[in-house]
Amino acid sequence: MAFILPIYAVPDFEQPLFADAPPVDFRKAPGNGIAPENYHATSIYPEYFQVKKGQWILPEESRMDCVVVLEEGGALSVKEFRNIRQGDLVACGRGENCEDGIFVHAGAFDIHNLPDEKFAVRSRITRETSFSIDYDELYELLRYERENGYIVWVLGPAVVFDRDARIAFAGLVESGYVHALLAGNALATHDVEAALFSTGLGQDIYSKQSVPLGHYHHLDAINTIRRTGSIEKAVEQGRITDGVMRSVIKNSIPYVLAGSIRDDGPLPEVTPDVYLAQDQMRSITRRATTIIAMATQLHAIAAGNMAPSYKVLEDGRVRPVYFYTVDMSEFAVNKLANRGSLTARSILTNVQDFVVTVERGLLYTRP
Amino acid sequence: MAFILPIYAVPDFEQPLFADAPPVDFRKAPGNGIAPENYHATSIYPEYFQVKKGQWILPEESRMDCVVVLEEGGALSVKEFRNIRQGDLVACGRGENCEDGIFVHAGAFDIHNLPDEKFAVRSRITRETSFSIDYDELYELLRYERENGYIVWVLGPAVVFDRDARIAFAGLVESGYVHALLAGNALATHDVEAALFSTGLGQDIYSKQSVPLGHYHHLDAINTIRRTGSIEKAVEQGRITDGVMRSVIKNSIPYVLAGSIRDDGPLPEVTPDVYLAQDQMRSITRRATTIIAMATQLHAIAAGNMAPSYKVLEDGRVRPVYFYTVDMSEFAVNKLANRGSLTARSILTNVQDFVVTVERGLLYTRP
Amino acid sequence: MAFILPIYAVPDFEQPLFADAPPVDFRKAPGNGIAPENYHATSIYPEYFQVKKGQWILPEESRMDCVVVLEEGGALSVKEFRNIRQGDLVACGRGENCEDGIFVHAGAFDIHNLPDEKFAVRSRITRETSFSIDYDELYELLRYERENGYIVWVLGPAVVFDRDARIAFAGLVESGYVHALLAGNALATHDVEAALFSTGLGQDIYSKQSVPLGHYHHLDAINTIRRTGSIEKAVEQGRITDGVMRSVIKNSIPYVLAGSIRDDGPLPEVTPDVYLAQDQMRSITRRATTIIAMATQLHAIAAGNMAPSYKVLEDGRVRPVYFYTVDMSEFAVNKLANRGSLTARSILTNVQDFVVTVERGLLYTRP
Amino acid sequence: MAFILPIYAVPDFEQPLFADAPPVDFRKAPGNGIAPENYHATSIYPEYFQVKKGQWILPEESRMDCVVVLEEGGALSVKEFRNIRQGDLVACGRGENCEDGIFVHAGAFDIHNLPDEKFAVRSRITRETSFSIDYDELYELLRYERENGYIVWVLGPAVVFDRDARIAFAGLVESGYVHALLAGNALATHDVEAALFSTGLGQDIYSKQSVPLGHYHHLDAINTIRRTGSIEKAVEQGRITDGVMRSVIKNSIPYVLAGSIRDDGPLPEVTPDVYLAQDQMRSITRRATTIIAMATQLHAIAAGNMAPSYKVLEDGRVRPVYFYTVDMSEFAVNKLANRGSLTARSILTNVQDFVVTVERGLLYTRP
Repeated sequence: MAFILPIYAVPDFEQPLFADAPPVDFRKAPGNGIAPENYHATSIYPEYFQVKKGQWILPEESRMDCVVVLEEGGALSVKEFRNIRQGDLVACGRGENCEDGIFVHAGAFDIHNLPDEKFAVRSRITRETSFSIDYDELYELLRYERENGYIVWVLGPAVVFDRDARIAFAGLVESGYVHALLAGNALATHDVEAALFSTGLGQDIYSKQSVPLGHYHHLDAINTIRRTGSIEKAVEQGRITDGVMRSVIKNSIPYVLAGSIRDDGPLPEVTPDVYLAQDQMRSITRRATTIIAMATQLHAIAAGNMAPSYKVLEDGRVRPVYFYTVDMSEFAVNKLANRGSLTARSILTNVQDFVVTVERGLLYTRP
Repeated sequence: MAFILPIYAVPDFEQPLFADAPPVDFRKAPGNGIAPENYHATSIYPEYFQVKKGQWILPEESRMDCVVVLEEGGALSVKEFRNIRQGDLVACGRGENCEDGIFVHAGAFDIHNLPDEKFAVRSRITRETSFSIDYDELYELLRYERENGYIVWVLGPAVVFDRDARIAFAGLVESGYVHALLAGNALATHDVEAALFSTGLGQDIYSKQSVPLGHYHHLDAINTIRRTGSIEKAVEQGRITDGVMRSVIKNSIPYVLAGSIRDDGPLPEVTPDVYLAQDQMRSITRRATTIIAMATQLHAIAAGNMAPSYKVLEDGRVRPVYFYTVDMSEFAVNKLANRGSLTARSILTNVQDFVVTVERGLLYTRP
Repeated sequence: MAFILPIYAVPDFEQPLFADAPPVDFRKAPGNGIAPENYHATSIYPEYFQVKKGQWILPEESRMDCVVVLEEGGALSVKEFRNIRQGDLVACGRGENCEDGIFVHAGAFDIHNLPDEKFAVRSRITRETSFSIDYDELYELLRYERENGYIVWVLGPAVVFDRDARIAFAGLVESGYVHALLAGNALATHDVEAALFSTGLGQDIYSKQSVPLGHYHHLDAINTIRRTGSIEKAVEQGRITDGVMRSVIKNSIPYVLAGSIRDDGPLPEVTPDVYLAQDQMRSITRRATTIIAMATQLHAIAAGNMAPSYKVLEDGRVRPVYFYTVDMSEFAVNKLANRGSLTARSILTNVQDFVVTVERGLLYTRP
Repeated sequence: MAFILPIYAVPDFEQPLFADAPPVDFRKAPGNGIAPENYHATSIYPEYFQVKKGQWILPEESRMDCVVVLEEGGALSVKEFRNIRQGDLVACGRGENCEDGIFVHAGAFDIHNLPDEKFAVRSRITRETSFSIDYDELYELLRYERENGYIVWVLGPAVVFDRDARIAFAGLVESGYVHALLAGNALATHDVEAALFSTGLGQDIYSKQSVPLGHYHHLDAINTIRRTGSIEKAVEQGRITDGVMRSVIKNSIPYVLAGSIRDDGPLPEVTPDVYLAQDQMRSITRRATTIIAMATQLHAIAAGNMAPSYKVLEDGRVRPVYFYTVDMSEFAVNKLANRGSLTARSILTNVQDFVVTVERGLLYTRP
């Protein structure tokens, strides 16, 4: 049963609700990084702004908790507070139903009324929720997205602590199911340690045997890469011959390694400034059509914050952006769900099993 | 790499430690269900009792936290306190190193020194532990046990809430990997509801759609079976055409459904008296060579309490009994680990994925 | 701010909805423990049954997932399936809005519109939810219930593993805040071990020091009580001089110790048949006005299943029954919440801290 | 029972183990941020380096996973890899028992043999562990440290989501129990939102009522502070009149707010570069004698990484540094414990209750 995009309900701007609405009040930002009084903040939904009477514009690249700036030329950009420049024309007004010329389009994708009720929002996901259909839907979605979309993976380090999961994820990269990768220093470091020493924090990633002086492997991996200059050079020079980072680099997959205060090292490719890292991450999530975050509360929430709920395709059609969270903990999953999300779904399991199962589901044929 | 039984170190009773030891002091139980002062309680290890000078006996069927009773004829039985009868001759003495004629054989299986270091005990298992080898070892173990052992599964209801897991477990039964089943009323009730209505607590077990009046399905399933007389009759009459209980019944697999205060119904096959249920469960765990407990803290701990750590084979050899816990929660797993167990290992994941993965690992061939 | 009972909205039976409704169709149960086709199952809400035209009756003692039986004399009893007797007149019909003469009164307590919005139902409780008001409300509620209600506590063993929590709970008993206790063999056994040896499973409950041969304390506690005859006798004889069970017994607080397959022993007061235990528990929950379940998924769900959502007072007024769950795990709390409950609320914390904090909140005055 | 510092075992350098040892081989770092081959990495233990024959030096300010650099003048500094400068003289050798002139002093504090066995390391802490003694010991420790030590708190945002916890922590600051604060943008943002609007993410932090347009409060708090210039200015100007940040600022407590990719805003005081933030944090942990990390896996692990296990006092004595983790999750706690730590202990509970209980324990007198 192949995946079909839900239909986007284009608002009927002839209706009185829209026809009677005022244009948006754009006000100048009083300083860098400062929004004017009564600024409008973006939600997770598509939103239309009546820039001038009768002209309702949907920003092409959105995310929640930002302001909307009218650019020269008339386009609307969605900016984080820190990226506001003094004098930017910021949309003002907190009404959501055209009172202020702004329409928050909560019912944009009539997902519940789809014939097969796929991807319906379900509340109170727990470990006892049935996930068979989620896997099956995910396979169809990923097959569709490989050809037609942009699949962003957000990885916590647990994925590379396990041999089979590490191999399976590299397999997904090689098979074209990974269009971009968001992660941190730890993911790359543990992956490099596995490549150089077959260990994770000094323990063999298959046999779990602790190796003599194995606790040095973590730091040796970092030191080796720093001496080599970068992970990319280590891959080029043939020092790193397997793993997630190698597959990503070999296949020219864009990636961001964001720094955190937990980091050792860091590896040379890591971005130390977290707001610069946010900008890099958003340059990727802008393009995303499906995002899958695994075993990382920090990166999952960060990606969730900046993930748009919709994407405007080149032909002007609007489609939803899917967001999956895979985690062991109801808390982590609820924390994301509490933020609200149109198209978020969760699978509660160990990511090791998730990755291995997804790779088999996509790449193997049942006997 | 096929599974090989660890070697059992038979104690050398010629050594002074044993040769100089007194015979065990057996004292009469002062009443039904009451042990004499200074009774000896069994541990999780094999234990030898010097019944008479020079005659060291290993009870054939052990479990922890019981007393050892010298039966007429000289055999030793391991009895729960509630099963002590007045006048039973109970082994006394709390020394563990022959001081009282009792030798607790903690190093019976030199598991750590096995060439391939398989099944080594590891501490602090978390969700980030690498589990690839555990799956591979489990496949080998189960293939061995299917032919040579007795595999007991302990199931929480989560296994049948998910379509694929339910199918996969039934597949394991059909393929000979399930020799006995321990569960409760809930497992059977949810499984029967799935068979009769394709729902679990009123929600489709695949699509997760809530069915109109679906909350009646749970009670209707119970009422239907009660009216029919038993699950077994419902299977015979062709009312139940799929699922775990049907496969178990069709294949004449022994099972115990133990009652709990959480139960609705109950179904006719459920044992209301929990101590009678313990006796039934132990009649199964006595035979076990591998026990796998999934997604049920109550039944897992109950089975763990009565699981022996060793089994005396018909040819007199002694082999270990393996005990797996599969759960989402570090707490559940630590709770079992804190009780100590020679051959316990844990996999932290969602049992849905576990069952599906194990079935594939055992029954499918990689392309 | 003293606790005030929410107002119960008595339905206006003059309205056409009621006036036009048929009387309930009562049908004979076809056998013991078997409901007739189309039986009506009780919900968590108050429900009215039109026994004869114009006579709408609210059962005085309800619980969910039961059938309603018309007794001789015209009263309605709410029976578990297993307690149905052949020939019982069971209410039939699954309409909830008078179509079958049955009215499910979901809006009975207009809790959301109370001036102070106390006890409002909140979704997605997590560990990061603010619980200050829940404590304050609980203090007020318990002060009210001590005088006017019936407070039932449901205890998992964790409460007595910690010295301060054990003392605090005994203090609550002594101060009149405990009207009944529901627990299992483990709670009583660990409490008795603490009384006899100051240990829990062989570890000092304050210093956490492991005592030599301390692992015998658990079994010795059981054996001592079995030899003495009962916990009550051990209290009478002065062998047990502190703890939860002593306070409960000394103050003639009713209690049920339900058996489970996890039990060692058991202690003499434990009920081995779980359905008999359910009957005993329900004889207590029938009277409950507030129920607090702590650190026990098994007993909490059991009590939740049989807890009514309302109570008919002697003067005919109807009041809600409050149900608190205190647990560390979002999963446990969601599991209860998923069953739906009118007046359920949860506090996510360690019960040790909960009990100590509640005791201080009730019994101490701030300096 | 007042707190007494454990005694530090000064090694006897006259012993052959030391007398026969070679001096440490210091080698030049080949580049900035790069350690030479065979570098020695610091552990969590005190370590002595034989700088020249007979001269064993203990670095004054250590942390794990760093290199040791011989400074001009002969002092030893402990540097993160990223802080190595080309030409730095880095201690080399991986022997831990003087083979390479380096002695890792694992038994420095004979904590297990202390008369009262306080602070003994315990394994497998779970929610059912008894924590009464931990609270009592913590009170004694904090009373001692207020006068004689340096108490660093590491806070996750949960602490300020709850009214009572927020008040209690501010009370601890005012009472002198907080010498430094490590946190992130979220802690400060939620605290400021509570100060300005009495809400946390738009929900009243006491009543939990959702306020109209409350979801703007979070962003409004950030925008207000950015417009004002800083949290400090907002405190000075009287805009922020309660809460954690106000107490910290009013009392001139040093603090670090480290940035993360999850951040909105950020607030002006936040450090965007995580490695600069690490340097700032370490400038505080260098002074620490007790560190308490609450409800933040990210900051807790970061602080744990850089927390020394010992501190050299002004009079030359060496004392341990205590490290507490307070969290709801066994996983978080095990993750820290798996890294190994001499003096780490954990309390599993909701931090709301923890803070309130600790404040009462320190500041109130029992009636």
